Amino acid sequence: MSEHAHGPEATQPGRGPGLSRRGFLTSTVAVGGTVAGLGMLNPAEGAESAQGGAAANPRLFTFVGGKAGGWSVVESKTVVGDPLPAVERLDIVQGAVPALPDGAAWLLRGVTSNVRYTTGAEKALLVAKQAGLGRPDATHAALIPIRKNAKWWSLTQDERRTIFEDRSHHIKTGLRYLPAIARRLHHCRDLGVNEPFDFLTWFDYAEADSAAFEELVDELRATEEWKFVEREIDIRLVRVDA
Amino acid sequence: MSEHAHGPEATQPGRGPGLSRRGFLTSTVAVGGTVAGLGMLNPAEGAESAQGGAAANPRLFTFVGGKAGGWSVVESKTVVGDPLPAVERLDIVQGAVPALPDGAAWLLRGVTSNVRYTTGAEKALLVAKQAGLGRPDATHAALIPIRKNAKWWSLTQDERRTIFEDRSHHIKTGLRYLPAIARRLHHCRDLGVNEPFDFLTWFDYAEADSAAFEELVDELRATEEWKFVEREIDIRLVRVDA
Repeated sequence: MSEHAHGPEATQPGRGPGLSRRGFLTSTVAVGGTVAGLGMLNPAEGAESAQGGAAANPRLFTFVGGKAGGWSVVESKTVVGDPLPAVERLDIVQGAVPALPDGAAWLLRGVTSNVRYTTGAEKALLVAKQAGLGRPDATHAALIPIRKNAKWWSLTQDERRTIFEDRSHHIKTGLRYLPAIARRLHHCRDLGVNEPFDFLTWFDYAEADSAAFEELVDELRATEEWKFVEREIDIRLVRVDA
Repeated sequence: MSEHAHGPEATQPGRGPGLSRRGFLTSTVAVGGTVAGLGMLNPAEGAESAQGGAAANPRLFTFVGGKAGGWSVVESKTVVGDPLPAVERLDIVQGAVPALPDGAAWLLRGVTSNVRYTTGAEKALLVAKQAGLGRPDATHAALIPIRKNAKWWSLTQDERRTIFEDRSHHIKTGLRYLPAIARRLHHCRDLGVNEPFDFLTWFDYAEADSAAFEELVDELRATEEWKFVEREIDIRLVRVDA
C-alpha cells in the first residue's frame, strides 16, 4: 500500500546479526561446507513436489562456479573487496540449485526484474539496438558480481537516478556498445537469503568485440556510480564448445 | 553492470511453468500441504548452522496466518483476485520460518528494501512526520498483501513514477495520514521463490484512527495506480494484549 521511506531503520538496515554477508560466504566456502542453507527450496519437504509445479521464481538464475558447465573461466580478477575462490568452469542454471554440486566452490543467484532507472525514451533506444544472449558467435562472456555500499542504498530514487545516468551515463555508455555486447542483469539484494552481492551481470560477445568490452567496463568503473561499489569480481569466460 | 531494459522476455517474464503464483498458493493450502517448499532456508543442511550465523536476509519478515500470534484477525476481505484462507491469528516473525507451523494455514514473507519512487524532498517530509511501528496505543493493524499485474511491471521507471505519484498521489496521500498511521512495506516479487503477492504492507494505528485508515485505503483504491492491482486481501487485526 505504500512505497514510502520507512525511516532509517528500514531503508538502511543492518547487514544482519553476527556475520556480514561478505563474511558469510567467505567462511562458508573456506570450510568447504554446503551452501544448501542459502538455498531457496527444500525439495525434500517441498510443496512444489506435492503439487507438481515449480516453486522457484521463474526469473531466478543460478551461477555455479566449479569444475562443470558450459563456460571455461579464462581470467578472474578481484576489482574491489573480498575475492571469490578460483574455479575452472561456470554452469548457468535457470532456476534454483538446492545444494552446492560436487566439485563446486560457490554458487551465486539472482532474479531478473523490472527496470529500476530506465525511462521510456531510453527503453525505446535499447530495444531498437540490443541483441539477445546466446548468439552463435558470442563465444566470450563475463560474469561480474557487484555489491554497492550502504550509502548507495540509503539514497532516494531521484538521487540514485541522477548519479546512475545524469552524472555517470550508465545507460548512454551501454547503448554505444550495442548490439555487440548482450547482457542480462540479475538482482540478489532482495532475495530471502543474505547474498554476498547485490547484482550479477552476465554479458556475452564475439571474440572480435573483446577490446570493446574492456573499454565498456573501464568507462563504467571510472564513473561516480562506481564509487559506491564496495565489492566487484570480474570473471571472464569462453564457451567450452566454441 | 547494467540496469538496462533487457527486452520483453526479461522485463516481462512468464509467471512460471505450470502453476501460476496464484494457483500455486491456493492449491498448496487446499491440500493442507506444508509450504516448506516455499522456504528460503533448509535448516537441516544449513550452512548457517555450521557457521553459527544467520543465512536469512536481515530485512526478511514472515507473516504466519493460523491459530497463534500476537494479533487477532477481526476482519478479512478479498478486495480483488483469489482469497486467502481465513485464520484467527497472525504471527509476525522477523526472519525466515522454514516450515508451516502446526495449525497455520499460510505464510507470507517479504523484505524491506530501498525506496523505489520516493524523491529526496518527499523523504524529508516523510521522515519529519512519520511514526514508528509498535506505539503502545497502536492496538489496531492491517496486513494488505497486493499483487500488481504484468502491465505494471513492464512499465519503465518514469512511467511507473508518473502513475504512482504524479497521477495517483500515493506519497502525498499517505503523508496526510502521518503520524497516525505507521507502516512498513515488504517486497516479495524478487524473492527466489514464486510468491503469490508482490508486496505486503503492514500498518498499525490507534483505535481512534480507524476511520482515518478507512479513508486512506479508500482513497488509494480509487487511483489510477490501483487499476494495476490484480490481487489484494485486506486483513484487519487487533493486538491480543490490548
